[in-house]
Amino acid sequence: MRINIYTNNKKIDKQLKLAINEYIKRNSIYCKISIDTLNKAKIKQSDYNIVIKPNSSLISSTELADKIKHISTYESSTINFILTDYDTIEIINDTMSISNIDINIDLLLVILTEQIYRAYTIINGKTYHK
Amino acid sequence: MRINIYTNNKKIDKQLKLAINEYIKRNSIYCKISIDTLNKAKIKQSDYNIVIKPNSSLISSTELADKIKHISTYESSTINFILTDYDTIEIINDTMSISNIDINIDLLLVILTEQIYRAYTIINGKTYHK
Repeated sequence: MRINIYTNNKKIDKQLKLAINEYIKRNSIYCKISIDTLNKAKIKQSDYNIVIKPNSSLISSTELADKIKHISTYESSTINFILTDYDTIEIINDTMSISNIDINIDLLLVILTEQIYRAYTIINGKTYHK
Repeated sequence: MRINIYTNNKKIDKQLKLAINEYIKRNSIYCKISIDTLNKAKIKQSDYNIVIKPNSSLISSTELADKIKHISTYESSTINFILTDYDTIEIINDTMSISNIDINIDLLLVILTEQIYRAYTIINGKTYHK
């Protein structure tokens, strides 16, 4: 599975970037995650596009695990999590919220990569190592 | 204001520790934050004890700002945020949740220190610098 996370911030807070990279590394046995600024040209018609925005329905780790499993089995080999400029996206397959507190976008990236890792440990029946 | 955060984990994930330290540093112009394992002896009668636990009422940044402002004005110069073993605490002044997703406790510490920083920028009418 390939997971692309699209955000609008080119410069991620240094400390949080280290945490994000650590979760990307832990995820690497399950999926390849990239973080990039949004460019419509990068989004393929066959991708599964999930918009992350506040005040959408909050998803639990188990629900995210079920969703990722379902998508990888039936829908697409690529998930795009779109945190910004989602108005420009032609096809939105899903909308969700992963935190309903005001939070800076860099910290949201840490939470999202951690939640993806948590989801994969659930999918694979592994113990979650923090 | 003095803020003590009590947790049960002696060893915080290295990358997240850096993020936590960064938020503690940013908070230092407003309050002194320490993170420690819970020891009842450290809790003074005059302290204001807030238990953080899942499925309590979720607090927004603005509500947290109002609460900290109220406590520092009328209640106590020390807030203890207790993330663990709260059954052992004699006086619990408040209970709240800062995230309602399953999250590891180290990441919760990042979110809590970030939320405290955000609250202080609101209290002081400052722009939030991520």
